[in-house]
Amino acid sequence: MKAARYYARNDIRIEDIPAPQLLPGTVAIDIAWCGICGTDLHEYRDGPIFIPAAGHPHPISGESAPVTMGHEFSGTITALGEGVTDLTVGENVVVEPYIIGADVDVSEGHEYQLSPNMNFIGLAGRGGGLSEKIVVERRWVHPIGDIPLDAAALIEPLAVGHHAFVRSGAKSGDVALIGGAGPIGLLLAAVLKAQGLTVIVSELSQARKDMATSTGVADHVLDPSQTDVAEVVRALTGGLGADVGFECSSVNAVLDTLLDAVRPAGVIVNVSIWGHPATVDMQKLVLKEIDLRGTIAYANDHPATIELVRQGKVKLEPFITARIGLDDLLDKGFDALINHNDTQVKILVQP
Amino acid sequence: MKAARYYARNDIRIEDIPAPQLLPGTVAIDIAWCGICGTDLHEYRDGPIFIPAAGHPHPISGESAPVTMGHEFSGTITALGEGVTDLTVGENVVVEPYIIGADVDVSEGHEYQLSPNMNFIGLAGRGGGLSEKIVVERRWVHPIGDIPLDAAALIEPLAVGHHAFVRSGAKSGDVALIGGAGPIGLLLAAVLKAQGLTVIVSELSQARKDMATSTGVADHVLDPSQTDVAEVVRALTGGLGADVGFECSSVNAVLDTLLDAVRPAGVIVNVSIWGHPATVDMQKLVLKEIDLRGTIAYANDHPATIELVRQGKVKLEPFITARIGLDDLLDKGFDALINHNDTQVKILVQP
Repeated sequence: MKAARYYARNDIRIEDIPAPQLLPGTVAIDIAWCGICGTDLHEYRDGPIFIPAAGHPHPISGESAPVTMGHEFSGTITALGEGVTDLTVGENVVVEPYIIGADVDVSEGHEYQLSPNMNFIGLAGRGGGLSEKIVVERRWVHPIGDIPLDAAALIEPLAVGHHAFVRSGAKSGDVALIGGAGPIGLLLAAVLKAQGLTVIVSELSQARKDMATSTGVADHVLDPSQTDVAEVVRALTGGLGADVGFECSSVNAVLDTLLDAVRPAGVIVNVSIWGHPATVDMQKLVLKEIDLRGTIAYANDHPATIELVRQGKVKLEPFITARIGLDDLLDKGFDALINHNDTQVKILVQP
Repeated sequence: MKAARYYARNDIRIEDIPAPQLLPGTVAIDIAWCGICGTDLHEYRDGPIFIPAAGHPHPISGESAPVTMGHEFSGTITALGEGVTDLTVGENVVVEPYIIGADVDVSEGHEYQLSPNMNFIGLAGRGGGLSEKIVVERRWVHPIGDIPLDAAALIEPLAVGHHAFVRSGAKSGDVALIGGAGPIGLLLAAVLKAQGLTVIVSELSQARKDMATSTGVADHVLDPSQTDVAEVVRALTGGLGADVGFECSSVNAVLDTLLDAVRPAGVIVNVSIWGHPATVDMQKLVLKEIDLRGTIAYANDHPATIELVRQGKVKLEPFITARIGLDDLLDKGFDALINHNDTQVKILVQP
């Protein structure tokens, strides 16, 4: 079968590899669509980061580069391994793409995303969504009912937004400020809107501002080059400030603005991946008793995330900005995202 | 009456001023003992910070320098204003030294410490503990039962530790790492120990390490110049890390160590006042889903704090390292703390 394989920085190859074998407790899936993630771009340009470099096998998967890429994917079940009785062949599914130690409790309520050596399918081995087929342990397969398979490829990044929402402790009626309207900022906005929050988005790029407006996920879209965001947020909240802030840009000025713009006893969730340390004004953190919280990926977020989409509370189609084949992955996928970063939200690949 | 009055940086004067007037709803107190706080030293050397400079009256108190200093004090009630019926003359009390807007809800469960223009008696007006007498609104007066008046002067900084404990969400059986064993770090350790936590203290100064050991508030005292604190903490916690960390030094290396030493999903409470921005490794915050929380002063912490002392769960006498008169405030008080910072914990002044 065809697969996109990561060898090293700037070296991803579309190759023919053997199809994976069905084993007891696993599910075989024909992949329908796979999204390209910012993490994939980082691996391509600056990596390997999450990907175990050649000769340095991942302690859980035992694999190292070359590895198949792609962790945002949907597909259809083609076969069930021995002991898997609660799914059916032909059912559409998405995969929660975790590689987690066998001794970790991955049941409801456990924070398995924080377990030692946690990594991801499509980065650290066990196949990936940028290939024709994959075989995945039953635990990580989630049925999606009648959600279209293209939209379903966005459930993985939407689950990242859902987990950030859970981490924030925000509730219906709260006011949220999102700093940065890239793919994760936009999908997070969609989750918050579906949960009944008032959503304010701060973003510099015109294309991204337009997307936040046209998709209806933001109640207010602010441009920090045009307005004092913290001042406008206070004006919108009776002088108090936002209940929650979400850092989705890894830009220090955005974090500074969030510290200004949240109310006393407010919460800021850092969703973005920073390549450098942040400078934090501790006086603001202290005098306003702000909580600055990290969030990574998801844990038991997929069922609730899928329900948001199934019930129509989140509409994912508007965030799909291109569809390409696997052979076009590098030029029409990776390079398009790198060069026209702000006009694209999610490019889907059909392997 | 005699009072220590702050005029400007490096200009504190012991003066004779009129005694304050009893008003309806207030309580007149003869001050027994007043502690010198790190904040007082900052005002003296680097201020005015909290103190409203001459000509810039505080929006709530209406006062500006010169102001009477001292906010950690105990005393005995000498008179009750009209309408105060639930206290008695001769009763020993401490003061929760807040200056809070008249429209702020200061009842149980409200975070009045975060209200606009919040400031402190002994810094922004309304008298202070470094004088013979004070008159305080009933709301801020807390009876102390049979707690000795000298120990009671430490209830205010102990309440700061109690509030940091509350902010952390820690519970009995948890493991805490305190970075920095100055007065607040030591008193926080006393609160945590009384609440049933295992307390690990990291501190460079020999005198402070000795104090953490001799007072029994720390189960383990580590020296970051001698050991890898995060590694030792992990060894003490089955490889996991501390449940909570407390930054009590405003030193960036200490914050770095706390980010390393807390467990995944751990909490770090920043208790110290930073004079400069902090550098934070966001990758650790994100990948471990750490909560970094600010804490300031106290809110409804005094009753529980007083109970800890009254029941003997916290012993405050060992932290009193000197007793002086008001006339010796600058040389035997402020200068002693500035020059022999680490051998002193709390110097009490008897006005």
